Amino acid sequence: MTISPPVAAPPDLATRLRATRAATEALAAPLAPEDQVVQSMPDVSPTKWHRAHTTWFFETFVLGPHQPGYRPVEPGYDYLFNSYYEQVGPRHPRAERGLISRPTVAEVGAYRTTVDHALGSFIDGTARERWDDVGPLIELGIHHEQQHQELLLMDIKHVLSRNPLQPAYADAADITLPGDAVPTSWIDVAGGIEPVGHPGGDFAFDNEGPRHDALLRPFRIADRLVSNGDWLAFIADGGYERPELWLSDGWATVQQHGWRAPLYWEPEGDGWAEFTLHGVRPVDPVDPVVHVSYLEADAYATWAGARLPTEFEWEVAARGRGVADATDQHEVHLHPTGRGATAGLGQAATEVWEWTASSYLPYPGFQPPPGAVGEYNGKFMCGQMVLRGGACITPPGHSRPSYRNFFPPAARWAFAGLRLATDA
Amino acid sequence: MTISPPVAAPPDLATRLRATRAATEALAAPLAPEDQVVQSMPDVSPTKWHRAHTTWFFETFVLGPHQPGYRPVEPGYDYLFNSYYEQVGPRHPRAERGLISRPTVAEVGAYRTTVDHALGSFIDGTARERWDDVGPLIELGIHHEQQHQELLLMDIKHVLSRNPLQPAYADAADITLPGDAVPTSWIDVAGGIEPVGHPGGDFAFDNEGPRHDALLRPFRIADRLVSNGDWLAFIADGGYERPELWLSDGWATVQQHGWRAPLYWEPEGDGWAEFTLHGVRPVDPVDPVVHVSYLEADAYATWAGARLPTEFEWEVAARGRGVADATDQHEVHLHPTGRGATAGLGQAATEVWEWTASSYLPYPGFQPPPGAVGEYNGKFMCGQMVLRGGACITPPGHSRPSYRNFFPPAARWAFAGLRLATDA
Amino acid sequence: MTISPPVAAPPDLATRLRATRAATEALAAPLAPEDQVVQSMPDVSPTKWHRAHTTWFFETFVLGPHQPGYRPVEPGYDYLFNSYYEQVGPRHPRAERGLISRPTVAEVGAYRTTVDHALGSFIDGTARERWDDVGPLIELGIHHEQQHQELLLMDIKHVLSRNPLQPAYADAADITLPGDAVPTSWIDVAGGIEPVGHPGGDFAFDNEGPRHDALLRPFRIADRLVSNGDWLAFIADGGYERPELWLSDGWATVQQHGWRAPLYWEPEGDGWAEFTLHGVRPVDPVDPVVHVSYLEADAYATWAGARLPTEFEWEVAARGRGVADATDQHEVHLHPTGRGATAGLGQAATEVWEWTASSYLPYPGFQPPPGAVGEYNGKFMCGQMVLRGGACITPPGHSRPSYRNFFPPAARWAFAGLRLATDA
Amino acid sequence: MTISPPVAAPPDLATRLRATRAATEALAAPLAPEDQVVQSMPDVSPTKWHRAHTTWFFETFVLGPHQPGYRPVEPGYDYLFNSYYEQVGPRHPRAERGLISRPTVAEVGAYRTTVDHALGSFIDGTARERWDDVGPLIELGIHHEQQHQELLLMDIKHVLSRNPLQPAYADAADITLPGDAVPTSWIDVAGGIEPVGHPGGDFAFDNEGPRHDALLRPFRIADRLVSNGDWLAFIADGGYERPELWLSDGWATVQQHGWRAPLYWEPEGDGWAEFTLHGVRPVDPVDPVVHVSYLEADAYATWAGARLPTEFEWEVAARGRGVADATDQHEVHLHPTGRGATAGLGQAATEVWEWTASSYLPYPGFQPPPGAVGEYNGKFMCGQMVLRGGACITPPGHSRPSYRNFFPPAARWAFAGLRLATDA
Repeated sequence: MTISPPVAAPPDLATRLRATRAATEALAAPLAPEDQVVQSMPDVSPTKWHRAHTTWFFETFVLGPHQPGYRPVEPGYDYLFNSYYEQVGPRHPRAERGLISRPTVAEVGAYRTTVDHALGSFIDGTARERWDDVGPLIELGIHHEQQHQELLLMDIKHVLSRNPLQPAYADAADITLPGDAVPTSWIDVAGGIEPVGHPGGDFAFDNEGPRHDALLRPFRIADRLVSNGDWLAFIADGGYERPELWLSDGWATVQQHGWRAPLYWEPEGDGWAEFTLHGVRPVDPVDPVVHVSYLEADAYATWAGARLPTEFEWEVAARGRGVADATDQHEVHLHPTGRGATAGLGQAATEVWEWTASSYLPYPGFQPPPGAVGEYNGKFMCGQMVLRGGACITPPGHSRPSYRNFFPPAARWAFAGLRLATDA
Repeated sequence: MTISPPVAAPPDLATRLRATRAATEALAAPLAPEDQVVQSMPDVSPTKWHRAHTTWFFETFVLGPHQPGYRPVEPGYDYLFNSYYEQVGPRHPRAERGLISRPTVAEVGAYRTTVDHALGSFIDGTARERWDDVGPLIELGIHHEQQHQELLLMDIKHVLSRNPLQPAYADAADITLPGDAVPTSWIDVAGGIEPVGHPGGDFAFDNEGPRHDALLRPFRIADRLVSNGDWLAFIADGGYERPELWLSDGWATVQQHGWRAPLYWEPEGDGWAEFTLHGVRPVDPVDPVVHVSYLEADAYATWAGARLPTEFEWEVAARGRGVADATDQHEVHLHPTGRGATAGLGQAATEVWEWTASSYLPYPGFQPPPGAVGEYNGKFMCGQMVLRGGACITPPGHSRPSYRNFFPPAARWAFAGLRLATDA
Repeated sequence: MTISPPVAAPPDLATRLRATRAATEALAAPLAPEDQVVQSMPDVSPTKWHRAHTTWFFETFVLGPHQPGYRPVEPGYDYLFNSYYEQVGPRHPRAERGLISRPTVAEVGAYRTTVDHALGSFIDGTARERWDDVGPLIELGIHHEQQHQELLLMDIKHVLSRNPLQPAYADAADITLPGDAVPTSWIDVAGGIEPVGHPGGDFAFDNEGPRHDALLRPFRIADRLVSNGDWLAFIADGGYERPELWLSDGWATVQQHGWRAPLYWEPEGDGWAEFTLHGVRPVDPVDPVVHVSYLEADAYATWAGARLPTEFEWEVAARGRGVADATDQHEVHLHPTGRGATAGLGQAATEVWEWTASSYLPYPGFQPPPGAVGEYNGKFMCGQMVLRGGACITPPGHSRPSYRNFFPPAARWAFAGLRLATDA
Repeated sequence: MTISPPVAAPPDLATRLRATRAATEALAAPLAPEDQVVQSMPDVSPTKWHRAHTTWFFETFVLGPHQPGYRPVEPGYDYLFNSYYEQVGPRHPRAERGLISRPTVAEVGAYRTTVDHALGSFIDGTARERWDDVGPLIELGIHHEQQHQELLLMDIKHVLSRNPLQPAYADAADITLPGDAVPTSWIDVAGGIEPVGHPGGDFAFDNEGPRHDALLRPFRIADRLVSNGDWLAFIADGGYERPELWLSDGWATVQQHGWRAPLYWEPEGDGWAEFTLHGVRPVDPVDPVVHVSYLEADAYATWAGARLPTEFEWEVAARGRGVADATDQHEVHLHPTGRGATAGLGQAATEVWEWTASSYLPYPGFQPPPGAVGEYNGKFMCGQMVLRGGACITPPGHSRPSYRNFFPPAARWAFAGLRLATDA
């Protein structure tokens, strides 16, 4: 599953596992049981499903195959909490996850506790010689759970947004603005043959490799994200009403769904407000724009006389600007801030995911691992676009310059924005 | 709203109101908060929605217009908990009731308590001369809430049935069988001109009147309900595979949904089990069949060489056999029993609702009352069939021989079965 | 199939058969082959399908079973041209009739000619003693073909209406207006026990019987149809915007489809034009309104402080005003005229079908005949409303006072309007 | 629109224009008017629509803007026959092209003739100095019409296939088989930096450029197409039943549509037959497989332990094997032959389009031309995969090694198959 998996020592991994599991519970803590049941669209999963599914992952890929005599906590959970692993067996239809009231939130909590104990004992009791087999699976489970932490926040935001009462996930934070909007500066990158993909040495998902050479032409890339202020200018200039700016699929989608602004924006007086995890707030023009689809990002870039960077352009540029450090250090916050539109590329790359011009396809020589765990990434390499960077809700340390996030072109519920590029 | 509304004295009505409100809470008590959020199909409403909507009804039709200075508990509830009263204002789409996690179950409970107190004070403080206006509205609210008590049970049964874990609403009751199946006896009714509709003297819904004469031809009506055993014979004889038995809409529906048995039946070994509010149980051949649609009831009757009774035939026959007493006395139980297929018409009429051959249309001279409350019944007089009798989950005292229940021909989640009739 | 079928003599029936078959061809004659292929919605059938299906009917119910050694013209037609007879065998899906380019229009014409010859020979060669069996089937086939003549015109009107070029079926006729609009006069009918249903003596469909007694209360019925002028007043008074006027299904349909006027009306300047078989014409306020659904007819009646008559009220009133004669004598024209809104009930009843307040249900004692031919009418007795009278496009002599036409409540492509009634 | 458009001399272009226009008419000649009306799915257009749309293209982009005083033949055609050019104005919904019976086939023929005459006069009368502007547009119109010739055949095949009578477009040709199946040979290609994209010098579509360098790793590519015999082995090995072989979208599509074989295959005895433009024929194991989607092609490659080539691998390999010559010389035939599976890459590349592993995205520096004609290619660069080569139904001379065809991953009605590749 991982590329050149360096196996951490059991005590270290156990500590990180506990921290990751606890972080999930902390994210769910502000929610009522009722909040954790609802599925507001097929793409969204209920909070308690995320909590149970990440637990099932450890049962299915670690405890079940490697802990002799392990008995699943509840046989029916295998059907309910399998997400998409065809080789594991039949599963509950994705679109019906919101119909399931039992196990209750409390029962899911107990399920997590039981499996956490079993994992602790398992790690303690695993002989050194078997660690090379199971350590990488636990590592994978940790990163998998981090992905679901971000999904949990994306999903509950969508759930709460569908309620006319517009409840907040958390009290409005005191988001300090870093100052005024700044003009875009352009970073020149020389092009040439550049290595891309994860260099090894620590964990990465299989889709980040094999590392290989890419041939880049000289290009320029913006040192800040497109801001809400930029987007307001796009709207004011008829951005959502001019078919010549849009891909064919984009224009059809705009017409079909009546898009007039990013997801979660709503008219307020003469301007716009947006629903956030802190409730409804005025749209701040300095903040990076978020919750736009690839289709919108592409139309915006066309309007701006620019284009989106390819994923390799992004990776090479980011590597040159210290993004790795930034992504390693940020803390989770629930809404992107003006930092993304005022600081340089290094910092900006932790505010919102950035759509690229690249389809999500396998790198040369890519081979998913055998077995069900090989379904993790490779089978989704069709019909999706790559996003790079990371978002304010991404768990600290989860992303890296070679990280490939991906969503379909029309998806808007991810914390996704964009950065412009042009040919040199 | 009511026909010749006899206004009960305030203390009596206050007592019945408290009892009715408490009965709703008792029905919700076995459920977890998570259970009360889920909407398993557009026809189904979440339990907490039923609890809130019945409360909103009293706020909207009693306290709001008649209690000076009354302020609604929460303004947003008017949008969330209006079911279908167009004249009250815009409302939340019915199919999206399951997306609403807030107010929580506890908040809905508090809402009920607050409104209950307000109602109590209101009744105490209402001058005698205004009682004739508001008493009938409270009476209506009580009967409205009773209807939702039955809906609550129908709906939660459907919700729980969609969970692969098949949780029970209540522990399996010890249902004593009254004995063996008995052959059908036929009751001869002479026909002629007969009065039908509610005779007045106590509460009835507007759709039960005006009382008027109906011309009936001589007919025979079965003194017991069609049983599961009868239905098994229908299935065994290819009932779901022979188009000549079915209405055109029926056959299309059978094909489209793959119906092969009543709703909630599932194959078990060589036979059938059924999901009930007590969990999964073997299908008992003595019990009356339940959860069949009008389309199936009609096909069964055709197969049996009989037909369904009209709603007036049913009413005249029931009146002659003491159904009124029976419907007045039964207690709620969660599953129909063999009593319905072994006792006479009087008792049987409290086991499952009985499909009739009559469309749900207005009686001659029917006029709904003015204002939003007039939307209660009349506007649904299109595309539905009448059911008569009552069901094991109908609140005691709620039904009567003139009571007109109604559902679309393909609906199956009501506790509905059938009784045969023939021309004399 | 028929009630007390009086069997015409072979030569007479042969003459009428030839005339009926020729009338169908005359209706198709103005159409290009391209016009005859298109299916503009699932309810609509292509013209060439009507021409082939009516031919298949004679093959399947007359020649096949009764002409020894008869070989179908083309075996595949049995699958393509069966409309809904489940007992005959599998058939082509209704919604896909427009995907079938072959047989071509010319091949369908040849099919008709071949079967016509076979029918002629068959009638000539049928022994007297077998005539009682086959005569009624030929009679039925004639009436069946007449029904399809009307459907052919309804359907091609819908097909042509979907073309932005708005082609006319026929040159604009010179429709002479009979004069100014007249106020509605009301006919008082006394009520009592009245026989309804076909009295026998000549052909009728099975659904028109058994004749039986109906108990009517005194009522009044308008002596003219609701006119376009009346409907314009309904629109001007917010008829399509006031939910309190509508059945629940009606209001939902208005919202879903954006209905603002009858089908085929389109805004033109300050007023309205309508697409007709003669092309687009201004809406004439004296003409009876046509192409309204039951849902609209009911809302109009509510707005007008009246109601629709029941089918038995209509039948009894019509019988008393000589409708029988009128329906017998009119000639086909392609658009209703002011006659419907200016002449009395007798004449009016041939302009547009009239929605009644009655669901389409079996009469007491109704039994469809055995075999596939029994699927003709009975299996549609669910979810539809009865229309009475006849329309300008109904073949002369095809209707009668006991005739029961039927469509779903939301259907608008029939030539249907309405007449008001009230309680006395 | 075109890359380095070399402008042909007027007489030469006029000759080619006439030939192209005549070729379209020749393709439609075997069809009845009825065949030319039908639209069997939203992706398919009726034959007469293709004939009219290609004519409208010349009116809109050549005659309208460049012939002074030109009046369109029929104003309504602008709405009916605009395919997707948003900047030209509103247009008829694509999914409703099959509802339009007028203009008739004869009227479309007359439309073509009129425009052909106008084009002839226009070319004759165009001054030399304006030829550089209008010549490329006529050239584009010729290539556009050739594309529609192929679409016409793809589409009519689908239309006829939906008819249970299974009519043939043309009499069964006597397709000579070139011999037995041959094993796959692999061509080694060295990799390195290679120029890709159209080199200029003659016509190409805008999406074939800019020519640029691509970095390729060493790879191997099969010298023959995957054959029906290969595909039968895939089916026999459970290819359509093993989720581990499929992309996630692929497996979902297989389940949803019940795919068990390529489009147009149907079980026959123990084997398979396929519907072709020559009617139903046994599946020939030597022929290249055709009418498979990208999703199926990818699953097959996974099953075979190989992969699809990228579009640049294909282009570089084809260039090295003389594909240019081959694509230039073939003649249209209506069904691929064994040649594709028995001859080398050069010849094979004219049998069926070949799915590649590349998403359809813009080349570096790509800019669509301004105005409506710029909507030709660029706006479809989302959600589609590139196909290379050409098909038996592609007009001679229309394709070339740099040609980029594209379809969505699930599309099957194109004449598309595949060729395997592997890493070296």
